[in-house]
Amino acid sequence: MADHVCRTRVVLEIVGDKWALLIVRMLRDGPRRFTELKREIEGISQRMLTVTLRDLERDGILTRTVHNVMPPHVSYELTAMGRTLREATAPLLEWSVEHLAKIEKARADYDAR
Amino acid sequence: MADHVCRTRVVLEIVGDKWALLIVRMLRDGPRRFTELKREIEGISQRMLTVTLRDLERDGILTRTVHNVMPPHVSYELTAMGRTLREATAPLLEWSVEHLAKIEKARADYDAR
Repeated sequence: MADHVCRTRVVLEIVGDKWALLIVRMLRDGPRRFTELKREIEGISQRMLTVTLRDLERDGILTRTVHNVMPPHVSYELTAMGRTLREATAPLLEWSVEHLAKIEKARADYDAR
Repeated sequence: MADHVCRTRVVLEIVGDKWALLIVRMLRDGPRRFTELKREIEGISQRMLTVTLRDLERDGILTRTVHNVMPPHVSYELTAMGRTLREATAPLLEWSVEHLAKIEKARADYDAR
């Protein structure tokens, strides 16, 4: 397969993942705590959030900071590269909100066949 | 969770899927046969390609055409909505190709910690 497509596929392992896209979107306005992310991303399990955050940290998309205060907590923040990823995902997220109704109609038509 | 985020999550079920993103990308230059898609998308199983194509058809992203010729075959083509999705995914795919090296470096640094 063309190298170009193969490389795209490798990275799509990262960005073509709905939880990763949602986390990147949630961090667009600044650092957030684990508990905030868990609460705001409906349907994500504790384990999936932990694994996805670690993978995004490993990929250089976000940083993890431990705050030794009372009570101690951990926050996550987009890196410069993470911010460019967020910009690159914005059109897709906007598309998704704009086309949700059309997709739901297409599904109803398909199921009624 | 804000309705806006919830709706985004629903659609991300569709577009936040690496196989769907790759298939949409592969159809950018016109209709393709099942066998072509299977051959060009490394790592995708017959079943995953079948399920993803059916989901994309159900979502109104592509159409499926049966050609009753010898030998008979099936081709898939983006709908008008599918083409707007492809445009919305282009920045993400371009980002992915541009940043692959940086991500691989970040991973090496993380693993060397």
